[in-house]
Amino acid sequence: MNFNLNFNNIAESYLFAEVADRVAKYTKANPDKKVLKLGIGDVTLPLVPEVIKALHSAVDDMGKAETFKGYGPYEGYSFLRDSIRGYYKKIGVALEDNEIFVSDGAKSDLGNILDIFSENNTVLVPDPVYPVYVDTNLMAGRKVIFADANEGNGFLPMPDYSVNADIIYICSPNNPTGAAYTKEQLKEWVDYANKKNAVILYDAAYECFITDKTLARSIFEIDGAKTCAVEFCSFSKIAGFTGTRCGYTVIPNELKKDGNSANKMWLRRQSTKFNGVPYIVQKGAAAVFSDEGMKQIQQNLAYYKRNAKLIADCMDELGIWYTGGKNSPYIWLKCPDGMKSWEFFDYLLHNAQVVGTPGAGFGKNGEGYFRLTAFGSEEVTKEAVSRIKALLRK
Amino acid sequence: MNFNLNFNNIAESYLFAEVADRVAKYTKANPDKKVLKLGIGDVTLPLVPEVIKALHSAVDDMGKAETFKGYGPYEGYSFLRDSIRGYYKKIGVALEDNEIFVSDGAKSDLGNILDIFSENNTVLVPDPVYPVYVDTNLMAGRKVIFADANEGNGFLPMPDYSVNADIIYICSPNNPTGAAYTKEQLKEWVDYANKKNAVILYDAAYECFITDKTLARSIFEIDGAKTCAVEFCSFSKIAGFTGTRCGYTVIPNELKKDGNSANKMWLRRQSTKFNGVPYIVQKGAAAVFSDEGMKQIQQNLAYYKRNAKLIADCMDELGIWYTGGKNSPYIWLKCPDGMKSWEFFDYLLHNAQVVGTPGAGFGKNGEGYFRLTAFGSEEVTKEAVSRIKALLRK
Repeated sequence: MNFNLNFNNIAESYLFAEVADRVAKYTKANPDKKVLKLGIGDVTLPLVPEVIKALHSAVDDMGKAETFKGYGPYEGYSFLRDSIRGYYKKIGVALEDNEIFVSDGAKSDLGNILDIFSENNTVLVPDPVYPVYVDTNLMAGRKVIFADANEGNGFLPMPDYSVNADIIYICSPNNPTGAAYTKEQLKEWVDYANKKNAVILYDAAYECFITDKTLARSIFEIDGAKTCAVEFCSFSKIAGFTGTRCGYTVIPNELKKDGNSANKMWLRRQSTKFNGVPYIVQKGAAAVFSDEGMKQIQQNLAYYKRNAKLIADCMDELGIWYTGGKNSPYIWLKCPDGMKSWEFFDYLLHNAQVVGTPGAGFGKNGEGYFRLTAFGSEEVTKEAVSRIKALLRK
Repeated sequence: MNFNLNFNNIAESYLFAEVADRVAKYTKANPDKKVLKLGIGDVTLPLVPEVIKALHSAVDDMGKAETFKGYGPYEGYSFLRDSIRGYYKKIGVALEDNEIFVSDGAKSDLGNILDIFSENNTVLVPDPVYPVYVDTNLMAGRKVIFADANEGNGFLPMPDYSVNADIIYICSPNNPTGAAYTKEQLKEWVDYANKKNAVILYDAAYECFITDKTLARSIFEIDGAKTCAVEFCSFSKIAGFTGTRCGYTVIPNELKKDGNSANKMWLRRQSTKFNGVPYIVQKGAAAVFSDEGMKQIQQNLAYYKRNAKLIADCMDELGIWYTGGKNSPYIWLKCPDGMKSWEFFDYLLHNAQVVGTPGAGFGKNGEGYFRLTAFGSEEVTKEAVSRIKALLRK
């Protein structure tokens, strides 16, 4: 037996481990100081009552022979897929029933989808980037090239026709930068992909934070996207499902090449390597789309959006350049006084006891930048903002 | 973009679709006849009360800020991994804490584990076989060779030192044949694997049906297995989790080659392409190992074991050769009167209205054999057995 030695090409990810380590050391040395964490992109509000009600009801179903559910459809139950289809319909996107696949999360599908593509494809990812896009491809031995995201393009790189790529990752609103493409900008990417015969893997995990009508909630709002894009979305951020695990992937029937259909290949992949999402979890996810469920979800989203505004307003007041904060739970700020990412991390930790994520951990263009998230509690966010203002006000 | 054309090498799996199709046609033509299904390997008893109680309690946790759980550990919560470790300890297998990985099911992990092995490895699978072992490897372009299982070896092929293989699949008790290896037989496979520097992927999904002490519940009961084996297990059969989705994979720290550790590579794979099993589901799974939970589970298992015995006794009475029935929920029988698998399928459907699975669907050596399962209700199993006896008694 030989191992897959491509694994040796993946850089060890020390980012969040290093963050945790520095925080632990600081806390040990300063046990009296209250450290405020705005680092990790995990939610803090509990599941909403309508989801909890649906989960309990589904658990009851599993305890009775008449309503017990064994193996379910690989692609998810119709009751959930129909609800997802309805969610897309509200933003003007018409999907076929078979184009929606329920999964255990966008991260799993973003990695697993690569099974259906050749290993000889060249992959284009932005820098800075969610590390999963890079690592999943390096594991399979694919060539990865980068599109520079920086202050010049507002961390929204646009297509370069001199670059040839087969698989293109776009995350909008972006993790880690919070920057979001307009519909016109996405149209340029769709045209590029169709022209180059490339596929766009579109990570829409943060679409629920979009309020600006000029921004796309789905790549399928863009003409031509159905022949070149796959979309990944998740209940993690819209409904706090980070520990409940449910997402969905949309693969248009039009996405074909040489008689092969991406949709059919993915169904084959899933039916061979996956056995569906727990019935209980799917019932909980479906409750997100009920009138009452959606109302409750929106209250939670409004809570996180207020946190984002608090942080963004703070940066405005301090005159610090940033992306995100609007239409996104992330604020990606330029470290003040030319500090490097880790330098600013330590400065903020030691002088304001606020923890964020050093941008350098997301790629070379992240150096000198820093990510704060809106997923903390309102109390923690307010206190953190107040400390940051006190520290950085000139 | 180019698709992964290895997908075109996978045979379309028509087995269960063809079964469903023939049953549907028969039912339409004979609406008054009651068809009894002993075909699919899915459970029918609901989740036991202790599991239901734990699931409800976990749902409550998710509804309150103080107990809400976001992202959990990639490898599963300690409360569940500790319970699994305890389960192994009872059969004399000592595992390190980091050797256990909780997953959404044995099927997912059996497929996904291949990410850590080179594509140049040669794969040895028994014939007949659970099709997933073959298809997952063909998708990745690996060479698959077969070990003949047949009446001569009791559907338990033994190692052939003239064959070189890198990855070896063993499922014991076997799906579809119900045959189970003794500890001595498994020792021969372990010695072969260590000698050939091969890895054994050991599917233990049906271990809970073993009562015979000469049979292994885990490959790690065998000396030398920790340097050559990975074990996959599941809550699907022991606790009826086919629609609740939880399993676990054991990767010993000793499984290494050239400085690479299978355990570390799998953790890296999972942390990159997976975000863990729902907290709620893990809480339900942990309840299986409580004293009361295990008592309730054993009652369900006893129910299925009685069904298996009913079918096995029927074959004994009819003088039909079979494997399984004991230590397994499957009965793999030789079709009477030299009938071929699909011929017997039609004969049984049309004359006794009993549905099973044609052995030919599991590989060339399955031709002339037929699988019945013990997962139906007691009522259906008794009625089916009575009809089979009436039909086949000479």
